[in-house]
Amino acid sequence: MGKKAEIKRLRKKLKKLKRALKQARSEAGGGTTPAVSPLAPAHFPTMPVIEGVRFAAINSGVKYVGRPDVMLAEMVAGTAIAGVFTRSATRAEPVLDCQAKLGGDAAEKAAFLVNAGNANAFTGGQGVEAVEILTGAVAETLGVPRARVFSASTGVIGEPLPSDKITDKLGTLGMGLSPARIRDAAEAIRTTDTFAKGASAEVEIDGKPVKIAGIAKGSGMIAPDMATMLVFIFTDAKLAQPALQKMVSTLVTSTFNAITVDSDTSTSDTLLVAATGASGVSVEESKDFRAALHGIMRDLAQQVVRDGEGATKFVTVRVTGAATDADARTHALAIANSPLVKTALAGEDPNWGRVVMAIGKSGARAERDLLAIRFGDVLVAENGWVAPGYREEDGAAVMRQDEIEISVDLGLGDGAAVIWTCDLTHGYITINADYRS
Amino acid sequence: MGKKAEIKRLRKKLKKLKRALKQARSEAGGGTTPAVSPLAPAHFPTMPVIEGVRFAAINSGVKYVGRPDVMLAEMVAGTAIAGVFTRSATRAEPVLDCQAKLGGDAAEKAAFLVNAGNANAFTGGQGVEAVEILTGAVAETLGVPRARVFSASTGVIGEPLPSDKITDKLGTLGMGLSPARIRDAAEAIRTTDTFAKGASAEVEIDGKPVKIAGIAKGSGMIAPDMATMLVFIFTDAKLAQPALQKMVSTLVTSTFNAITVDSDTSTSDTLLVAATGASGVSVEESKDFRAALHGIMRDLAQQVVRDGEGATKFVTVRVTGAATDADARTHALAIANSPLVKTALAGEDPNWGRVVMAIGKSGARAERDLLAIRFGDVLVAENGWVAPGYREEDGAAVMRQDEIEISVDLGLGDGAAVIWTCDLTHGYITINADYRS
Repeated sequence: MGKKAEIKRLRKKLKKLKRALKQARSEAGGGTTPAVSPLAPAHFPTMPVIEGVRFAAINSGVKYVGRPDVMLAEMVAGTAIAGVFTRSATRAEPVLDCQAKLGGDAAEKAAFLVNAGNANAFTGGQGVEAVEILTGAVAETLGVPRARVFSASTGVIGEPLPSDKITDKLGTLGMGLSPARIRDAAEAIRTTDTFAKGASAEVEIDGKPVKIAGIAKGSGMIAPDMATMLVFIFTDAKLAQPALQKMVSTLVTSTFNAITVDSDTSTSDTLLVAATGASGVSVEESKDFRAALHGIMRDLAQQVVRDGEGATKFVTVRVTGAATDADARTHALAIANSPLVKTALAGEDPNWGRVVMAIGKSGARAERDLLAIRFGDVLVAENGWVAPGYREEDGAAVMRQDEIEISVDLGLGDGAAVIWTCDLTHGYITINADYRS
Repeated sequence: MGKKAEIKRLRKKLKKLKRALKQARSEAGGGTTPAVSPLAPAHFPTMPVIEGVRFAAINSGVKYVGRPDVMLAEMVAGTAIAGVFTRSATRAEPVLDCQAKLGGDAAEKAAFLVNAGNANAFTGGQGVEAVEILTGAVAETLGVPRARVFSASTGVIGEPLPSDKITDKLGTLGMGLSPARIRDAAEAIRTTDTFAKGASAEVEIDGKPVKIAGIAKGSGMIAPDMATMLVFIFTDAKLAQPALQKMVSTLVTSTFNAITVDSDTSTSDTLLVAATGASGVSVEESKDFRAALHGIMRDLAQQVVRDGEGATKFVTVRVTGAATDADARTHALAIANSPLVKTALAGEDPNWGRVVMAIGKSGARAERDLLAIRFGDVLVAENGWVAPGYREEDGAAVMRQDEIEISVDLGLGDGAAVIWTCDLTHGYITINADYRS
């Protein structure tokens, strides 16, 4: 063989090996789970200052070393606080405490205290005590009524929360409060998250600017109703607590309750929205404000999926033509939660048979021979079989993308739903067979 | 650079890459998925001859090479046939055909034809035609009415079944029929199964022996209602079809509908039971027969879990003290299907917090502070927290075993349920991100 041919041959072999190596490494997950999800946004967004809110973050040593793991947010008097929480029957003490405090008088200051690494869930009487100690200490440090101190905890279930480690740092935390430190807060609430999550918007209402900024954590144990997901959104808009609560409760359906990583629902899910009113702009009737808030909630929800444990694909499951919206949602969740669909996505396999399977098992109404299934724009199956023009290579090309849409039309009615999810990879197994959450 | 140097450089790079690839592959587990499940029984059981049934198996070349992938069973005139099938809304053509044929006249001979490698599911009009061709050809070959020929297919969904490859072999298959070849039949119905599954019993009724022998296939897409699970049970007992059907339909609840590997329900699940009556022993009122049949169904169901894709742990989830049996079943399934519980089992992590989570999300009634959770005999949690005497090392010791029982008492009532499942490992991902099922 000539030297030129030999070089060509070696190069070809190298290319092949590189591909195989990439594949094997992705399968290995273990040592090679990426430091940052491949689906992460390029960078943390620039966040506006929300007038009336100050943030601080610190390391408490509860679990993590060398990184902040407690965040504190302080809101001015008059701030309206709305919230939505996990519906788990075994929900954690901080969740119960937040639920009891919602809807209270907005005349005084308010605060959020959040720690990562210990969920203070299923911790018996000691859990109740820890919440009392923590919220009491924040109340004292900041001069806020205890009824206006909301706390959230994320991390290991069932281990007592050493609240003294946090209270020891409260003085320093309080002195560090600054309107500019929202990113530090986003960093401090991470557990298995591979990136800090933030989103913001600025809308002009009646000629005046209104700002919204939100942060979130969440990566595993993510399913509708809601997830090991903590979300905190702040705005300088002005609206009464009932109006804010109603808006948030409605928007949660198509945002945080429309995502699933692994179908496992956390005991700690917490979404809190604080409206300081500092802009002086009343937004109760503003469609623009509602749209902006909706956008931020959807953005943060999708970021949680993008940080799904071990995720390599961001997947939109869109179901149309169902008998009802509820049926569409049931089908979409069956597809999004199916381990076989999720592993096919991981393997970049256009395995539409598993989509058929998931629809069949969902329990919602479906007629096998009316289904139409698409991967991206490619019509894959219809009339009870593979579509006549479908070529496997077209399906495979869609599957190789980082962002994939699976759409199913049931041909029965007008019911529709969208669910966002990710694939199920070796990385998920590696993270969860080792990490104690 | 000279061509020689370039070749040298490329060769060096190749060598380095090869080393890295070997390393990554060993980490991936991919290459190391065991040939036979570590939970498999030591050997295929010795099976009794069931008078009135003959078996044959052959390779058709539909998918697999060098192993039988079609089985034929022929039963004598008068054989009663009962069946239970998947409830999937997208169930396969052979299932629909079997369902239509059940309950027919038992005066004539009957036959089962089963192929592995192609599920003939979601194959449109061609699927209907394939079932007609296959059952028609068997009817002709064996002199059996077509209405007494039951077929089942397992394997890839959505690819047309090349029925001619099977009909071509029917003559040879028919000539190979023998009462002793049930093990060949068990081998022929395997897909991703790592071992052939069989169970048998012999009971004495009114001083006369009655024999039962069953075979099964199933490994993934296994969930109650039912699974990519094919099960065929044969007995020489005598009982009318309605009595057999009633018995089988009842026993399926605590056997094949009490297992889950991955919560994914197949489009092809089929359980067929044939009673030839050749023993002359009427068993309609026999508790011993019922108990023996129950035992075989439970044994085969558990073997399916033992061959769960990638399984390294056989797990019994036992829920007691629920408000109702249905509630207990909902909780048990929530635990058994939770990816986080299953990965904790894979990691031998006594992570009881995830059990608390699963109970909380199930939707069935639970009181957090009344729960008692045990791993094996070890009381792990009670009264809303970790049990006072619990030591992590005791929980960990249970988790290291191959067979693990998780039991939960809800402290609410008398409702109880048992579900069998397995862990979720890298092996499951490797198998399902690659295998087209």
